[in-house]
Amino acid sequence: MEKPGVVTVVDREDPTIVDPTDAVISIKATCICGSDLWPYRGIEPADHLKMGHEYVGVVEEVGSEVTTIAPGDYVVGSFVISDNTCEICQSGFQSKCVHAEFVHGGIGTQAEKARIPLADGTLVKTPGEPDAEIVPSLLAASDVLGTGWFAAVGAEVGPGKTVAVVGDGAVGLMAILAAKQLGAERIIAMSRHPQRQELARYYGATDIVEERGDDGVAKINELTDGLGAHSVIEAVGTQESFMQAVGATRGGGHLGYVGVNYDVTIPGIQLFFAGIHTLGGPAPVRRFLPELIQLIWDRKIDPGKVFDLTLPLEEAAEGYKAMDERRATKVFLTTD
Amino acid sequence: MEKPGVVTVVDREDPTIVDPTDAVISIKATCICGSDLWPYRGIEPADHLKMGHEYVGVVEEVGSEVTTIAPGDYVVGSFVISDNTCEICQSGFQSKCVHAEFVHGGIGTQAEKARIPLADGTLVKTPGEPDAEIVPSLLAASDVLGTGWFAAVGAEVGPGKTVAVVGDGAVGLMAILAAKQLGAERIIAMSRHPQRQELARYYGATDIVEERGDDGVAKINELTDGLGAHSVIEAVGTQESFMQAVGATRGGGHLGYVGVNYDVTIPGIQLFFAGIHTLGGPAPVRRFLPELIQLIWDRKIDPGKVFDLTLPLEEAAEGYKAMDERRATKVFLTTD
Repeated sequence: MEKPGVVTVVDREDPTIVDPTDAVISIKATCICGSDLWPYRGIEPADHLKMGHEYVGVVEEVGSEVTTIAPGDYVVGSFVISDNTCEICQSGFQSKCVHAEFVHGGIGTQAEKARIPLADGTLVKTPGEPDAEIVPSLLAASDVLGTGWFAAVGAEVGPGKTVAVVGDGAVGLMAILAAKQLGAERIIAMSRHPQRQELARYYGATDIVEERGDDGVAKINELTDGLGAHSVIEAVGTQESFMQAVGATRGGGHLGYVGVNYDVTIPGIQLFFAGIHTLGGPAPVRRFLPELIQLIWDRKIDPGKVFDLTLPLEEAAEGYKAMDERRATKVFLTTD
Repeated sequence: MEKPGVVTVVDREDPTIVDPTDAVISIKATCICGSDLWPYRGIEPADHLKMGHEYVGVVEEVGSEVTTIAPGDYVVGSFVISDNTCEICQSGFQSKCVHAEFVHGGIGTQAEKARIPLADGTLVKTPGEPDAEIVPSLLAASDVLGTGWFAAVGAEVGPGKTVAVVGDGAVGLMAILAAKQLGAERIIAMSRHPQRQELARYYGATDIVEERGDDGVAKINELTDGLGAHSVIEAVGTQESFMQAVGATRGGGHLGYVGVNYDVTIPGIQLFFAGIHTLGGPAPVRRFLPELIQLIWDRKIDPGKVFDLTLPLEEAAEGYKAMDERRATKVFLTTD
């Protein structure tokens, strides 16, 4: 991304092994993330950023210290580089690893190849060469599925619980899928987009609420005997959506949030009197990858349905445009 | 409190039973809370408020539907009225009870008598008439101990963990006591007040950090191999102390906060990238009262040491002044 709104596909030198813990992978599929729209829209700085942080691929070469993957392995990686061995990683927060580095910006996987540092701690190999039909689902695991899953875990979704999901973008839809897998009794999708409502229902939403802000909160209260939802997932990241999520959570309930923009400021007193648990941050996707890959491999979940536009990598610019204009929920980019 | 800074002791009519779930109690001891200083200092509105929300006393009369306490019982009550039967109470968040009402403002227990609504759900009787020496400790259970305990539980304090406590007021000191009881390995008190440091060490602090703000965060990082504390307790409630607490929490760690003033605004992006769990709100003291009363009764904890000035109720105004000027940590008011 040369600058906000300007995406160009250029030739770059092939990456090579730099550190003995690196791997170089040939990227088989990548995609555009909702968060890529922040710099695209100028809300975050963008000056010749190497874009892309979601990827599946085949290992081409590994450094001398890499032990868990080898050339030829098909791998899924997290959007945050992690060693997966430090105390923070071991506690399940690989996105806060002491060696954490974002793939976005400096590495960039909207590309044919990439050098992935700390390969053992970042990449997970699939049980074998995947069928083409599950590649989109594996790619989703790299971020949106892992992020939605983390939000649901952070919101302590579980059997018997009522879950409200604020946001019907890819992450919100994946959070619905996760909530269903985690056994939620009732899943309320907050969405006013007919096609996304349909996908929300497909993934497990039992109720749809179209109202937003205070009206949305009132509606959630109405649906929950005035108590609010046990678990709320915030998957938009604006001031209004964040406060809507806080308001929709019952006292003692749990809010999982997985993205906020730079303008969000939370009135402390309002959060305090809500009396709720929160967990937020970049998702530690690496924690969930082995489980998610297996669920996809066994055809128990199909997160790949979230992609509704496929383009060759060369046409990435059109993909950004389609997402920016909300003509597409999530764009799949092919590299062949 | 007639208005900010003006506290007067006046004759009021004796309270009587209004609802069949009420109790009227004769207050044996009460006290002044750090939060009473918000209206005193004009940070919160104050227009003829009935002050006081911490209390121990003897039941004089109960309504026809009260079953768990009877006239003559010695009781400790929470600073929030709760039914203790609704779904929210049953989940342990009595301070967010569907019938919640603050004792502060409309009831006021800096008094000789008080009508306590929902007596069964709010009051807990002690095993018998307490010895005078443990009355201050029982009184502390009514708020500061229960609040510090909640903060420690909210911060997921436990064996093997490093805990940082921001604030050396009564609640901070009680949080230190709680952290020790809950088995914390290391307890870092953030304090620059020599006498309070001494009390912090008495209650279990293993380290003292005098630095504040970014310097305080840097010091916590230095003491924790650059990771931050597992558990952080925020017991001050200002913008600086809140952000200091966020900064001191390791990725994936837990922050418990038990008071913020009206001016605190939390930058969403900073909370997000911290990647931490939070739990805040008025403490559900009622949840912890049975356990805390027993610990005090058995002389296992002595929270009453937090009181460092005793005055008769008639001299309440002097008590407010002493706390406002930080000449006293917490003022005990006698009613005899």
